[in-house]
Amino acid sequence: MENLLKKKLLEFLEEDIGFGDITTNALISEDTVAEARIISKKEGVVAGLCEAGIIFELLNVNFEPLAKDGDRVTNGQTLAELSGSARVILSAERTVLNIMMRMSGIATETAKLVDLAKRINPKLRIACTRKTTPGFRYFEKRAVALGGGDPHRFRLDDMILIKDNHLSIVGSVREAVNQARSKSSFSKKIEIEVEDVDQAIEAASAGANIIMFDNMSPEEAKKALSLLEERGLRDRVLIELSGGITPENIEKYMVLDVDIISMGYIIHSIKALDLSLDFKKKS
Amino acid sequence: MENLLKKKLLEFLEEDIGFGDITTNALISEDTVAEARIISKKEGVVAGLCEAGIIFELLNVNFEPLAKDGDRVTNGQTLAELSGSARVILSAERTVLNIMMRMSGIATETAKLVDLAKRINPKLRIACTRKTTPGFRYFEKRAVALGGGDPHRFRLDDMILIKDNHLSIVGSVREAVNQARSKSSFSKKIEIEVEDVDQAIEAASAGANIIMFDNMSPEEAKKALSLLEERGLRDRVLIELSGGITPENIEKYMVLDVDIISMGYIIHSIKALDLSLDFKKKS
Amino acid sequence: MENLLKKKLLEFLEEDIGFGDITTNALISEDTVAEARIISKKEGVVAGLCEAGIIFELLNVNFEPLAKDGDRVTNGQTLAELSGSARVILSAERTVLNIMMRMSGIATETAKLVDLAKRINPKLRIACTRKTTPGFRYFEKRAVALGGGDPHRFRLDDMILIKDNHLSIVGSVREAVNQARSKSSFSKKIEIEVEDVDQAIEAASAGANIIMFDNMSPEEAKKALSLLEERGLRDRVLIELSGGITPENIEKYMVLDVDIISMGYIIHSIKALDLSLDFKKKS
Amino acid sequence: MENLLKKKLLEFLEEDIGFGDITTNALISEDTVAEARIISKKEGVVAGLCEAGIIFELLNVNFEPLAKDGDRVTNGQTLAELSGSARVILSAERTVLNIMMRMSGIATETAKLVDLAKRINPKLRIACTRKTTPGFRYFEKRAVALGGGDPHRFRLDDMILIKDNHLSIVGSVREAVNQARSKSSFSKKIEIEVEDVDQAIEAASAGANIIMFDNMSPEEAKKALSLLEERGLRDRVLIELSGGITPENIEKYMVLDVDIISMGYIIHSIKALDLSLDFKKKS
Amino acid sequence: MENLLKKKLLEFLEEDIGFGDITTNALISEDTVAEARIISKKEGVVAGLCEAGIIFELLNVNFEPLAKDGDRVTNGQTLAELSGSARVILSAERTVLNIMMRMSGIATETAKLVDLAKRINPKLRIACTRKTTPGFRYFEKRAVALGGGDPHRFRLDDMILIKDNHLSIVGSVREAVNQARSKSSFSKKIEIEVEDVDQAIEAASAGANIIMFDNMSPEEAKKALSLLEERGLRDRVLIELSGGITPENIEKYMVLDVDIISMGYIIHSIKALDLSLDFKKKS
Amino acid sequence: MENLLKKKLLEFLEEDIGFGDITTNALISEDTVAEARIISKKEGVVAGLCEAGIIFELLNVNFEPLAKDGDRVTNGQTLAELSGSARVILSAERTVLNIMMRMSGIATETAKLVDLAKRINPKLRIACTRKTTPGFRYFEKRAVALGGGDPHRFRLDDMILIKDNHLSIVGSVREAVNQARSKSSFSKKIEIEVEDVDQAIEAASAGANIIMFDNMSPEEAKKALSLLEERGLRDRVLIELSGGITPENIEKYMVLDVDIISMGYIIHSIKALDLSLDFKKKS
Repeated sequence: MENLLKKKLLEFLEEDIGFGDITTNALISEDTVAEARIISKKEGVVAGLCEAGIIFELLNVNFEPLAKDGDRVTNGQTLAELSGSARVILSAERTVLNIMMRMSGIATETAKLVDLAKRINPKLRIACTRKTTPGFRYFEKRAVALGGGDPHRFRLDDMILIKDNHLSIVGSVREAVNQARSKSSFSKKIEIEVEDVDQAIEAASAGANIIMFDNMSPEEAKKALSLLEERGLRDRVLIELSGGITPENIEKYMVLDVDIISMGYIIHSIKALDLSLDFKKKS
Repeated sequence: MENLLKKKLLEFLEEDIGFGDITTNALISEDTVAEARIISKKEGVVAGLCEAGIIFELLNVNFEPLAKDGDRVTNGQTLAELSGSARVILSAERTVLNIMMRMSGIATETAKLVDLAKRINPKLRIACTRKTTPGFRYFEKRAVALGGGDPHRFRLDDMILIKDNHLSIVGSVREAVNQARSKSSFSKKIEIEVEDVDQAIEAASAGANIIMFDNMSPEEAKKALSLLEERGLRDRVLIELSGGITPENIEKYMVLDVDIISMGYIIHSIKALDLSLDFKKKS
Repeated sequence: MENLLKKKLLEFLEEDIGFGDITTNALISEDTVAEARIISKKEGVVAGLCEAGIIFELLNVNFEPLAKDGDRVTNGQTLAELSGSARVILSAERTVLNIMMRMSGIATETAKLVDLAKRINPKLRIACTRKTTPGFRYFEKRAVALGGGDPHRFRLDDMILIKDNHLSIVGSVREAVNQARSKSSFSKKIEIEVEDVDQAIEAASAGANIIMFDNMSPEEAKKALSLLEERGLRDRVLIELSGGITPENIEKYMVLDVDIISMGYIIHSIKALDLSLDFKKKS
Repeated sequence: MENLLKKKLLEFLEEDIGFGDITTNALISEDTVAEARIISKKEGVVAGLCEAGIIFELLNVNFEPLAKDGDRVTNGQTLAELSGSARVILSAERTVLNIMMRMSGIATETAKLVDLAKRINPKLRIACTRKTTPGFRYFEKRAVALGGGDPHRFRLDDMILIKDNHLSIVGSVREAVNQARSKSSFSKKIEIEVEDVDQAIEAASAGANIIMFDNMSPEEAKKALSLLEERGLRDRVLIELSGGITPENIEKYMVLDVDIISMGYIIHSIKALDLSLDFKKKS
Repeated sequence: MENLLKKKLLEFLEEDIGFGDITTNALISEDTVAEARIISKKEGVVAGLCEAGIIFELLNVNFEPLAKDGDRVTNGQTLAELSGSARVILSAERTVLNIMMRMSGIATETAKLVDLAKRINPKLRIACTRKTTPGFRYFEKRAVALGGGDPHRFRLDDMILIKDNHLSIVGSVREAVNQARSKSSFSKKIEIEVEDVDQAIEAASAGANIIMFDNMSPEEAKKALSLLEERGLRDRVLIELSGGITPENIEKYMVLDVDIISMGYIIHSIKALDLSLDFKKKS
Repeated sequence: MENLLKKKLLEFLEEDIGFGDITTNALISEDTVAEARIISKKEGVVAGLCEAGIIFELLNVNFEPLAKDGDRVTNGQTLAELSGSARVILSAERTVLNIMMRMSGIATETAKLVDLAKRINPKLRIACTRKTTPGFRYFEKRAVALGGGDPHRFRLDDMILIKDNHLSIVGSVREAVNQARSKSSFSKKIEIEVEDVDQAIEAASAGANIIMFDNMSPEEAKKALSLLEERGLRDRVLIELSGGITPENIEKYMVLDVDIISMGYIIHSIKALDLSLDFKKKS
């Protein structure tokens, strides 16, 4: 819902503008009108056009997107055309590009893995994690979704996810799953991170909804999946792989009968997609 | 000043926690006390320990840093020790690591270039740009500084920087510099982006404080520098190189007699430094 | 995590205090110290002591709870003792009592139903809904939990819940469940509201995690449960009853083999628990 | 003034929506247009239509009220018609209804007492108190006014109201009234809570503007009124009754020659008025 | 209540500090400790020491006031001593002095008039108006009170004040007073601005609590007072004079039998009291 | 950029309006339409019309400025005409006038000095300082600019300004300038406050960009300027005079060969420009 984004997007503008764009105010008269284009300088998946549209609408700049968020775009492709106050466009340029470049970089990296998964294991989901930039999570998770990925948990309150640090205190997998079920709302799924085959089976038989194989080799993961299958537990749970998976070894994991592969790096360690805003005085 | 960070850091916690850390609240009793360590899992330059300290102080968790922001750290090195409420540590873990991992990634990448510059051209500064993650700029610029880099402009109001889009409207370099000087406060420096030798000389003689050579080859840049020198203009200005510079070709630029090389990628396209928080129940 | 509540609780104080408590400031000198007690004037379940404690700690008033949130309390029971600045206690009194009275009223009403359920059908959960007072949901949901109830969804982003208005557009139950699963994160449960037996069976076989029987008579609900059982679908889903259930007829619903009964009125139509703060000048 | 409400109303939406209405986003396409109606399912006094109108205007949904705030409405009556984006209407539905249901419940309960008062003692005002839901006071006080009641003090800064806890420190009624007058602005009225006839007379002769008879029986109140009359003090003050008044015994108080009866329960212990939003796909 | 000021005072610091005090951070090491003094460089009435104390407490700087808010101070007098982090003191200096200088200037000017009034007409109050600096009203009104003045209305919601623009629409004074009484809460005083004797009498007989003689000459005001007295209306109302009163002619107004003289200029057109913070390195 | 002002301007309205303009709401019906004029009651330079326009646009009141910010206006001149809801105009009147009166007072005082400077020393700039009203700096600095003055530093982060308190710790002028240059961004100018001729020369030869002569007599300043000239240092630096300059002695400073005279009093000790809003019911 656009209106809830407006406040946040205005805060982003404020962060960059402060007391005013002193360069633009000194050089460009208030009534100068201009046209501009946002252009992709790399191939990738675009994201953030919706946010750009909200910002420019707030600023009374006419914004015409020529692509949709989630579209594949090529080097040199015009993503949007703008017209309106030259001052306003120049002052908002960097904030808009910063949003779009980061979101598009994430969407692009996500889409690469999603494409690979589609070829190897069509039912597999590529998910991100909570390793996001503080204050920018909404936009980063949305970029993952635009790249075809799964946004996973939004926050600590929307799913139970029992991790090794929790287990180090609770002790038993079964106990942890049971406590989680009895002490939290029925409306939440319960996921648990396991480190070996035994824990995986204990988790599944305790009724976890999702089991995360943490830092397992493809071989271990495969063995755990077979054992779950054997004991009739495989269908009761979703299996998520996480940890130690890199673009180099990911195919070995994708061939397994798992439901989700989650990777923090598609948010925290990607390259921004290079975009520019080109501007010309109205003739 | 710590107090001004507290509000922002609490907003980061809120973004992750929402209505509460339902996993931790279900599994860990309120009075469980724990000890934990933050450990680097890569070699790099650490940043964000100060922010981590503020967060844990706010949460009444004892936080003992074993390194200082800006320190080189090794794989496996303990960066800090914590003790306090297990619930609180678990609930704040991800937010703290997200801040530290991103800041440390930026500091690490910056330091690589700064080290290289120190060997090749000791007076050279490595600067970032305004290509930052919206809402997180303060922390990203601080990370650059911790890596030895120059934070450049904070916002659109703290320096005049005339770019190609401005020039496309104003027309002349001299006119732009003159207008900027007469219409803005004496307290601001004036920088202008130029694309060729002629513009560079025009800018220097018009009294710009800093000239940015945008997207020039090392050869062009060298030629421009010579001409400025010849005309006695070199000492009046700082020269900043930007655009088209990559880790691959940067040494060719570093050998030139320039003052600043600025690169957006040390903020927008770096890998987070891998850190973890390891937790064990107090015996 | 207390610190995240502080901001909200201070806003509540601000709403009441404005430019200052002019009565207290006129009558009580700055250095007057006082002792006070918070007393329950009805039997019930207390909630909000934690919030009161945070407020008084912020205000440097010594606050000693004599009961814990969730405790049954009797008419006349002292819930907490306070000592500190008379001015501050008087100025914060109403805000603190407003929080505690509303939360305790909700906890009390919830506990009545939870007690009844425990006797009739021990596995049954009593849940609230999203029918909360805008701006106060966190505290109202927490009060339900303190009364032994289930807080249900926190927000529109933490569970899929397909309602009649959605179905009026999508058309088919199966289609709705399938779309929800494919277009949302694996981390969310899927609940659907159904109006008759056929829809219930369609929902269960489509893989919904939770089925809400909306406004069904006990007889209809019973029939639907039998049919689900017959078809081997009962164990795959949780069953939630909602709509048309009142304190008068609730026992007829409680005897059924259902998992959850949810009722908005335990938040939106309860009586506040009567509490008072009694104050005496230190001798 | 609408604009000052917008910020608050958007915060209410944010509280419910979080990262997005995942159900609606999964099931309803962005361009689906719908019509809906808000219907009363009980008889009562409607309040909150103005707030609903502001929300839907912010969200670009066409909102046509068919009643005015403060109107008596019947079971089944359509209060407003809406048309616009199905997604937006579905996402905002609960927040809008939560505001309207609570405000209408308060207005309805207030109106019952106001009607009774009009028959028994036409000059009598029914007032609420500061016992409101933290964060929602503005709306609750407005609902009281829409029900024909008096909103009483908004905050601790807009009237002097000396209560028993103040008197326990100051000691004398006369002293308290005198201090209040000399130490506060001339722009504020001075009210004092008294517990018996002597205090009432002391307060009136000290120049209090309003005297609150706290927890007096109808007989005591009557006696106090006679004595004030006798001494020529009755006309100088307004008399407010408060405490111990219930719907059951209120008529015995209403017949007295008093100006105001104030009751916290019309805000803190009422039933929300049942409303629903019915939705159908545009044909 | 201090805690409610903290947020506002931190916003004031943020306004001045932005990304950091770059001068101090470059020149002063983090562990430099310093002592400083706040000194008055003029004679006047000091205000804002309380606010300074809150700020320095927030910043962990030891702050020892040597005077109290409202005290007369002399040129050269030390108002407070500070010790703590040199960096922090330097960074907060300007914000603290800005608050204190403006508040003290207002308190000083107010006290001059209050002193004069005490000699001429001891029961007379000197009041300010709502002509305040947006965002700073609380502090300006508090400064008036510290100077011995009356803060008058805080906002548009805490008293009825019928002005000429209202009367231009309503038409009749009596009608305006009657409407105000019937349509607003009993808890508010009713003041009305009148321009001549007839309106004054109409207002008093209609039951206004306060009558403001707007822009009347001392002679007119005197005549109006006599007529009110004659008709037995004088004791029922407070009389406020406003408009056209200057430091030059104020004594002619002070001798009249009026209750309040209100003047906007003691807030909007005063000189700040000159203060400085003197700093020396700890030996 | 207007949108960034809206939030702040709404906060100013909220400060004045609170729960509502109870006078206007009681007396003026919701559908009353009115016309009004904003009139200057003194000669001066108007400022704040832009802000008034934003406020009235937010409130859907038609606002037609008849002057531009920065214009000289005469006593009695109509600055703007308004038409729209009488309620809204009356409720916003005071906030709008408070902004305009303060800004116009500052612009008027600034313009007086700027005019004088233009006659005496055309290249001279009149600047303000950071002595501003907390929370209102943006508007006060903008008013200085509208009066023809230089806004100087916005915050502590946009220029290095080394003051006496810094020097008391660092010791040497040269050391301070060198440290400032090496430890801060190349993008900032370096200014240093000096107290005598020797420091001035040391500062200039150390490479400061701007030298502030603090509290020097015209004679001392003149001598310092001569010495700088002699040593060939004058052209490298800007010279700012500050401290001890009053409207009475300013001409003696203006004749000197300096670049800037800065004075705090044009913000902190000016008279508001008297404006009024005159209102009449539409016929």
